[in-house]
Amino acid sequence: MSSTYRRIALARRPSGDPVPEDFSLESGPMPEPGEGEVLIEVTHLSLDPYMRGRMDDAKSYAEPVAIGGTMTGQGVGRVLRSRAEDVPEGALATGITGWASHAVLRGKDVRVLDEGTPPSSVLGVLGMPGFTGWQGLREYGRPKRGETLVVAAATGPVGSMVGQLARAQGLRTIAIAGGEEKCRIARETFGFDAAIDHRAHEDAGSLRAAIADAAPDGIDVYWENVGGRVLEAVLPLMNTHGRIPLCGAVAWYGATPGDTDHLPRAWRAILTKRLSVNGLIIFDHWHHYPEFLKEVGPKVAAGEIAYIEDVAEGLEAAPEAFISMLKGGNTGKQIVAL
Amino acid sequence: MSSTYRRIALARRPSGDPVPEDFSLESGPMPEPGEGEVLIEVTHLSLDPYMRGRMDDAKSYAEPVAIGGTMTGQGVGRVLRSRAEDVPEGALATGITGWASHAVLRGKDVRVLDEGTPPSSVLGVLGMPGFTGWQGLREYGRPKRGETLVVAAATGPVGSMVGQLARAQGLRTIAIAGGEEKCRIARETFGFDAAIDHRAHEDAGSLRAAIADAAPDGIDVYWENVGGRVLEAVLPLMNTHGRIPLCGAVAWYGATPGDTDHLPRAWRAILTKRLSVNGLIIFDHWHHYPEFLKEVGPKVAAGEIAYIEDVAEGLEAAPEAFISMLKGGNTGKQIVAL
Repeated sequence: MSSTYRRIALARRPSGDPVPEDFSLESGPMPEPGEGEVLIEVTHLSLDPYMRGRMDDAKSYAEPVAIGGTMTGQGVGRVLRSRAEDVPEGALATGITGWASHAVLRGKDVRVLDEGTPPSSVLGVLGMPGFTGWQGLREYGRPKRGETLVVAAATGPVGSMVGQLARAQGLRTIAIAGGEEKCRIARETFGFDAAIDHRAHEDAGSLRAAIADAAPDGIDVYWENVGGRVLEAVLPLMNTHGRIPLCGAVAWYGATPGDTDHLPRAWRAILTKRLSVNGLIIFDHWHHYPEFLKEVGPKVAAGEIAYIEDVAEGLEAAPEAFISMLKGGNTGKQIVAL
Repeated sequence: MSSTYRRIALARRPSGDPVPEDFSLESGPMPEPGEGEVLIEVTHLSLDPYMRGRMDDAKSYAEPVAIGGTMTGQGVGRVLRSRAEDVPEGALATGITGWASHAVLRGKDVRVLDEGTPPSSVLGVLGMPGFTGWQGLREYGRPKRGETLVVAAATGPVGSMVGQLARAQGLRTIAIAGGEEKCRIARETFGFDAAIDHRAHEDAGSLRAAIADAAPDGIDVYWENVGGRVLEAVLPLMNTHGRIPLCGAVAWYGATPGDTDHLPRAWRAILTKRLSVNGLIIFDHWHHYPEFLKEVGPKVAAGEIAYIEDVAEGLEAAPEAFISMLKGGNTGKQIVAL
């Protein structure tokens, strides 16, 4: 057990892409749990693209991280002290710990895990990202056997879940990923029917031609988590009555108006192709999480659903790992092991 | 009966806003119905914003009008000759006649109307526009008592239907219209709780402030049929889980990429507010049309649903009436009486 409390704070709001100077490593006295609270020592921390949005001072679905505040995020660890019923000391537990070595949380905001659960799986394939893919695909993607699905960031924890679930339901699945190696992983590890390296294409038109080759029957479901050039490439290829679950737009985090145009073109596509575009924030859907665990947990345990984790070592490595992830530097689910 | 066949043809594709020179009045020999066909003498012709889209050579949900081809559109008239079973000569009938004095249609593409039906009502309040409002509101708007709805082009045949139906279901309804007179009509004839003259506002920000004043609880349903500045004003006011049935974007017909930016901003709004944006082309939904007539027909007959028609006189007046309509020159449903 570490006796030092350390955390990564937001030092300032990023201008465009975050840089290391936007974060600071702080230390301080060990926090004390009050009545009904627990103290967790964090062993694994999740890094996710949505955290970029929380760094901006924009009205959004959640409060921005305050300057000087601890970066938000889910962690897993051991309960060091408990003043909450139903949360025993020594238990493996998860909650919104933030980027910190320890966290005090209310007992009711903590989920106690079965011993033997791989701690990091709770942050990825069986956590928020995997659940996002499962829930968004079934509710807004509405896949049908024989259709074609395109997913960007396809080796990431959301995209790889979406692709594997869709393929199991009889869809043709097309991965878009950055680099040859990720494309190979998309095909070999996650079973995508085709994988396209967006870095090999200079512009949206060239990327579109490659996707069109891989999707001879057009696209019925576009799992949208990047925005930008990929969206521009995909929209004209959408089939009538296509669906676009919109769960992120990482290419546009920090974008200023005028960076990209094409709203009229996108709106026209939604209209003329009768697309269904639905914003998805997984926090609205937690009541379905037990159902997800029940359905997908055994498939992960049986090896029917594959997953990849990238692990950075040490809390102090979190900012660089996060910055790199936003640029596509990770292959799978980005974890920090403390 | 007129013995001359006349039609309005597309002389050339418009560059931006259509001008009179984009159309030509042609005459020719009276068309002859073949086996299974009928000849209709058109008495009333519908002008609708979607026709602007058909003038462009763009891939869309329907074929563009060919250069030299007759402008497309729905008409009502009398059956002069019939070689189709179930369509008696002399009957009042409607179909896609195009902008023409007469049309030959297959019998199965013609709908015979009850005698006594006001011919023009079939083109507006009880035709495609009214049906669009009814179907789009129930399927994609999903209105709930106590919510707030905003509709642009609110005195038009779609917007006025949407507003009246929503108000009857207990929503607060806010009209956006061009000019004081239309705002007065929106309130007095169609019962909107508030009406905002978009012409009185220099920019989207000023318009937004006026809408925000009228919608203190935010906007749950935005009936989208204009795009452009109104969309820009409305998006930030949308409530979480808001719905945007998208049935037109008249401000953007003919827009070239780069005219307007804001796709990143719009996409971010869809994501963070978990909006549901659904393209609506009414041709997909005709199987619900009898249900619409059954529900709404009696309400129109009883005066519970009001409607307004603007009537231009003579086929040769159609291009000018259409050009004016696209600029908001009409108040209600634009008809041409031949």
